[in-house]
Amino acid sequence: MGETEIVIEPGKQEIIIKHIVDAPRELVFKAFTDPEIYSKWIGPIGMKTDLKLFEPETGGSWRYVQRDKAGNEFGFHGVNHEVEPNERIIGTFEFEGLPEPGHVLLESVKFIELDENKTEIQEQSVFLSVEDRDGMVASNMEEGIRESYKQLDDLLITMKK
Amino acid sequence: MGETEIVIEPGKQEIIIKHIVDAPRELVFKAFTDPEIYSKWIGPIGMKTDLKLFEPETGGSWRYVQRDKAGNEFGFHGVNHEVEPNERIIGTFEFEGLPEPGHVLLESVKFIELDENKTEIQEQSVFLSVEDRDGMVASNMEEGIRESYKQLDDLLITMKK
Repeated sequence: MGETEIVIEPGKQEIIIKHIVDAPRELVFKAFTDPEIYSKWIGPIGMKTDLKLFEPETGGSWRYVQRDKAGNEFGFHGVNHEVEPNERIIGTFEFEGLPEPGHVLLESVKFIELDENKTEIQEQSVFLSVEDRDGMVASNMEEGIRESYKQLDDLLITMKK
Repeated sequence: MGETEIVIEPGKQEIIIKHIVDAPRELVFKAFTDPEIYSKWIGPIGMKTDLKLFEPETGGSWRYVQRDKAGNEFGFHGVNHEVEPNERIIGTFEFEGLPEPGHVLLESVKFIELDENKTEIQEQSVFLSVEDRDGMVASNMEEGIRESYKQLDDLLITMKK
């Protein structure tokens, strides 16, 4: 499957991510909204994701805790502004490990059908400040995204069988 | 009461608004979360706001329709990522009158207690693109905000009595 393109322009308060997968759009959307499948690929390799709340629908909320091999736990939560089947998921995202709450970001994920077996995932995150964005970039986020999508690629191969 | 400061920096994808009111923080928070009070001040002068859904709590959703004197209707909706009483409201916001859905913004409102009868409202909106922001600015948003806060000022005087 394809590489993951991550654009982090200096001084901007956004991150743009593109990733192309060899799978039909419906299957990719399923991988984002089926709790069992989603928990298998989201997050860095070796991280175990425990979905505490997962409502992949407009107005729904979600929360998960990821645990690494050393037992460290990282919590995340947000709300879904819009979940339009096979089209897009727009919602908020917050990492719970920061010194204070309120460093929320807005995340938009669009599923673009390139052909019946190829889908482009267009992900965009916008932050309340450049500092918030740069803080997340400094937390090794890029590697986490690349590893997530690597795991998604592998899962989609299994799902197509 | 104070002027409304609106900062719209060229090329950025955010709008920063500051407004100081002569009212205790608890009262200002109430004006943002009590449906009867909120519907009286939100929006430009002369606009009638009809709250269709109003859940001012973490994970809650909201939707309102504003109608001008000519009968034109404008719908807006979003979800609340976090409502922390007297502290902050963070959530999404979308105007329903655009040619396509998905032009969502993230809005953070913080209530800063300056003294027991003076509160600074710090509002920040971040958009998925500079174009989205500039489109909203072009829609006479600034005047709408100033008029909203003018109406809030007037209401707070009544509420304090």
